[in-house]
Amino acid sequence: MSAIPQDFVRKTTQLSEEVTRPFPNSRKIHVTGSRPDLRVPMREVSLTPTHTNEGEEENPPVFVYDTSGPYTDPNARIDLLAGLPDVRNAWIEERGDTELLTGPSSAFGHERQNDPELAHLRFEHLRTPRRAKSGRNVTQMHYARQGIITPEMEYVAIRENMRLDELRADPRYAKVLRQHPGQSFGAALPETITPEFVREEIARGRAIIPANINHPEVEPMIIGRNFRVKINTNIGNSALTSSIEEEVEKMVWSARWGGDTLMDLSTGKNIHETREWILRNAPMPIGTVPIYQALEKVDGKPEALTWEIVRDTLIEQAEQGVDYFTIHAGVLLRYVPLTADRLTGIVSRGGSILAKWCLAHHQENFLYTHFAEICEIMKAYDVAFSLGDGLRPGSLADANDRAQFAELETLGELTKVAWEHDVQVMIEGPGHVPLQMVQENMTKELKDCFEAPFYTLGPLVTDIAPAYDHITSGIGAANIGWYGTAMLCYVTPKEHLGLPDKQDVRDGIVTYKIAAHAADLAKGLPGAQIQDNALSKARFEFRWEDQFNLSLDPDRAREYHDQTMPHVSHKVA
Amino acid sequence: MSAIPQDFVRKTTQLSEEVTRPFPNSRKIHVTGSRPDLRVPMREVSLTPTHTNEGEEENPPVFVYDTSGPYTDPNARIDLLAGLPDVRNAWIEERGDTELLTGPSSAFGHERQNDPELAHLRFEHLRTPRRAKSGRNVTQMHYARQGIITPEMEYVAIRENMRLDELRADPRYAKVLRQHPGQSFGAALPETITPEFVREEIARGRAIIPANINHPEVEPMIIGRNFRVKINTNIGNSALTSSIEEEVEKMVWSARWGGDTLMDLSTGKNIHETREWILRNAPMPIGTVPIYQALEKVDGKPEALTWEIVRDTLIEQAEQGVDYFTIHAGVLLRYVPLTADRLTGIVSRGGSILAKWCLAHHQENFLYTHFAEICEIMKAYDVAFSLGDGLRPGSLADANDRAQFAELETLGELTKVAWEHDVQVMIEGPGHVPLQMVQENMTKELKDCFEAPFYTLGPLVTDIAPAYDHITSGIGAANIGWYGTAMLCYVTPKEHLGLPDKQDVRDGIVTYKIAAHAADLAKGLPGAQIQDNALSKARFEFRWEDQFNLSLDPDRAREYHDQTMPHVSHKVA
Repeated sequence: MSAIPQDFVRKTTQLSEEVTRPFPNSRKIHVTGSRPDLRVPMREVSLTPTHTNEGEEENPPVFVYDTSGPYTDPNARIDLLAGLPDVRNAWIEERGDTELLTGPSSAFGHERQNDPELAHLRFEHLRTPRRAKSGRNVTQMHYARQGIITPEMEYVAIRENMRLDELRADPRYAKVLRQHPGQSFGAALPETITPEFVREEIARGRAIIPANINHPEVEPMIIGRNFRVKINTNIGNSALTSSIEEEVEKMVWSARWGGDTLMDLSTGKNIHETREWILRNAPMPIGTVPIYQALEKVDGKPEALTWEIVRDTLIEQAEQGVDYFTIHAGVLLRYVPLTADRLTGIVSRGGSILAKWCLAHHQENFLYTHFAEICEIMKAYDVAFSLGDGLRPGSLADANDRAQFAELETLGELTKVAWEHDVQVMIEGPGHVPLQMVQENMTKELKDCFEAPFYTLGPLVTDIAPAYDHITSGIGAANIGWYGTAMLCYVTPKEHLGLPDKQDVRDGIVTYKIAAHAADLAKGLPGAQIQDNALSKARFEFRWEDQFNLSLDPDRAREYHDQTMPHVSHKVA
Repeated sequence: MSAIPQDFVRKTTQLSEEVTRPFPNSRKIHVTGSRPDLRVPMREVSLTPTHTNEGEEENPPVFVYDTSGPYTDPNARIDLLAGLPDVRNAWIEERGDTELLTGPSSAFGHERQNDPELAHLRFEHLRTPRRAKSGRNVTQMHYARQGIITPEMEYVAIRENMRLDELRADPRYAKVLRQHPGQSFGAALPETITPEFVREEIARGRAIIPANINHPEVEPMIIGRNFRVKINTNIGNSALTSSIEEEVEKMVWSARWGGDTLMDLSTGKNIHETREWILRNAPMPIGTVPIYQALEKVDGKPEALTWEIVRDTLIEQAEQGVDYFTIHAGVLLRYVPLTADRLTGIVSRGGSILAKWCLAHHQENFLYTHFAEICEIMKAYDVAFSLGDGLRPGSLADANDRAQFAELETLGELTKVAWEHDVQVMIEGPGHVPLQMVQENMTKELKDCFEAPFYTLGPLVTDIAPAYDHITSGIGAANIGWYGTAMLCYVTPKEHLGLPDKQDVRDGIVTYKIAAHAADLAKGLPGAQIQDNALSKARFEFRWEDQFNLSLDPDRAREYHDQTMPHVSHKVA
């Protein structure tokens, strides 16, 4: 008998049809790896034949990287109350380096679990938290440096490869395999992604697999410049709006359109419980900014933050399964004055919180001074660092200034520390940067942060288009992705203006899929052009349905087409 | 007493309020040049003061380049039946090198004027066509090469400058004048645009002012890589849809959002009459693809086209006032086989028409063989060439191939011929090109076409996003604009799918304003960052109304903001 009221269950467990409907002419397939429980999902798009004078010419199916999780699989049984089936439990257990705890070891996690007032909205099937055995390190980087290829590494190798070797051996694909040479700016994209290549990239810190041992539901994915460029989406309730069921629906919606990872930036009430619902049902890695929740615990007063509160929050979230933490440890006391002459000061919320703390106490940022202790927590659960750019520019005027780059240099120093602990790291980047100054960000990040994956917000290449900032930033994102950024944090049309609704999320994601794909093509990622070629062939042959089905948003392509009568003279390609 | 039925008059002369409403907190100003009839429009945006601890700090007004014509001027009397007041008649007459004709000298123009069946939809106040006196050349390039600074040249110098010298001398603007150095890839952007600089650029063919002597209503503008990057929009009825009043409304709508020039690509009936209505009411240069209309005259059969029909069409349109013609004279017979192995063959409509003609007759393209005669027509009215890229790639796979570049080389050869006649030229470019191959297009165009202005369609940097091709192409457009393209032809979300409606046109234009502005900033165009700085300052100071009013689309920014409660934590800049 569930303790959760029926009304809440009904609302929370019913995903709308639009977020779960399979894509047209598509089916979910699984490619099995070296063990039967290693099954990598892909989407197969079937095409119609071409009618030629010599008869029918087959158009073989196209395989698409699939972030949507089991939700688009008509054979999967979805039960949000129970959460997704686990993908990784056996792999984690086999390693024998973790232990199940008796309950949350964070004070806050313990308190929330035992608060009877929360029973009505608590996720019911709470997992028992898992932690590394004493003295053990359970990060993918640690395994990689021991020479171990984990199932997670093999999984992402298969996922990145997208059956490319098979397609190359199949003469039906000869025409769509045509591809222009890329300009990779020093990236090292192999012809085929092997598990050993994945291991090497992780071992040297050039890529990460964000996969907390407490998030066994995750379908592993990799972030690094020698792999497909990824995109992150953000959701989050606020004090004012939205509920748990809306956030879960948005998470599934994000997965549907192609979000590779998702950050939960909630600031309202019941953050802890909302996060649990999301994690248990999330096929993608989940990131958070723990300082946001810590701030809620001290009633929004930055100066009241303490290392102890943040530490407890890190453990609370790590034991729920958060896969990466944004940690603003590079906002040093001495950097704060560097922002005084800026046009737009400090615009990062995390940066602003830490800067206020530093000034109030006139002490060094406690995330910096306690960084080694944070590493100890990260490696006990395999939470990856996303080292936050708290001093990122909030306007073109402030781009690439001393404050921004001073922080970036400190992030490089912290990367080294994290790597001494074998903790995975990515580096956050801007922001607002005019086009001609975008590349400098990438070049400096690669140098100062030793090629740790870069993860940027856009950047926006002009400030004058609120309501279109998915586009202003998509331009910057495509460019910085080309130069080497591993993951692009999406921006929606509501950026700077308000909270995105579902259509804004869709617009933001598709724009960023475009940017990421444009970057893959530009770098010369093997196989990246197959989908373009197949779609263009369909277009040229007036196979309209195939054109729609191969596009990033089949629903909207079809809808737009159906709004007006097709007339050949207006279909200039 | 008008011959036009009242119903048509009512529909045709009523612009909707949304296309004429002035922008909020904006007023139209005119900067007067060296003569009282040289009055250059700009939009002045007033801002509210900043409240500081020391009292109020004034935020001086920002001036915005204004393409909207008299339509957004509450003091202007708009009468679509009479057309816009002329801007240039006195200038043209003073030069004394033209003469008024007694009527249209094209057979088709004559026929249409005297067809009683067309009386009900004919523009009433037909201008008497004007032509160069025998032996005279009336192009801006011809004057420039004689050392003459025309009023048109002075007009565009003032327009490009946007009062920058005055702002530099005004200490209130010190903060918003901050700007990063650009990377201009060899462009030569002066600190101040002088009329003499305009003249020099036109004389050497690096810029054009499309301004037919039969389009005196035009507000002169310049297209060249050492000036602001411009955008072109397309309208056009088809056999299936839309009417004269819709096309006029769309033209005004395009001007409102920032279209610098407009191409009328109509293919339906009454093309001639529609064009007249548009021209008489258009403040921006109008371009056409005359072969489209010529094809209508031969019932859509490319092989039935003749030089005589095209010649008559050129004269017909030149005498109406079309400012630039797309001429696909580079599609040579021997290039057609180069497209055989392409994934998507020939996708340009003009290219396809000419290729069919060449193959049907096995003769060289008659636009190529008659090119000198076309130049004779162009210089009698000052119609500029837009040398069409009939072999542009229709997919990434076909980008930068031999067919495309062979044609580009021929366009360079034709540029030289046109310049021997002192006829203004710009060069059309692609299309579909992956990011890493975009710059080669620009470099080759500058070299092969001797720095004649480049005018590109996007390019789209991936093929997989129909319904979002304003974005896929906006990314390419920002980049190629940065590299040196002078004008970007917009793409709407309906590209490849159907006919754009008004909201699609708005989305396409704003996306391209973003791309063009991003390019200006990246090149380091003096003053380009003022609007960004002013908007970012407003944003940082929570002057919401100023932020909206300074944006490319104040209406949508306000609307999006009002959809959700503003909450500070979500307004991460």
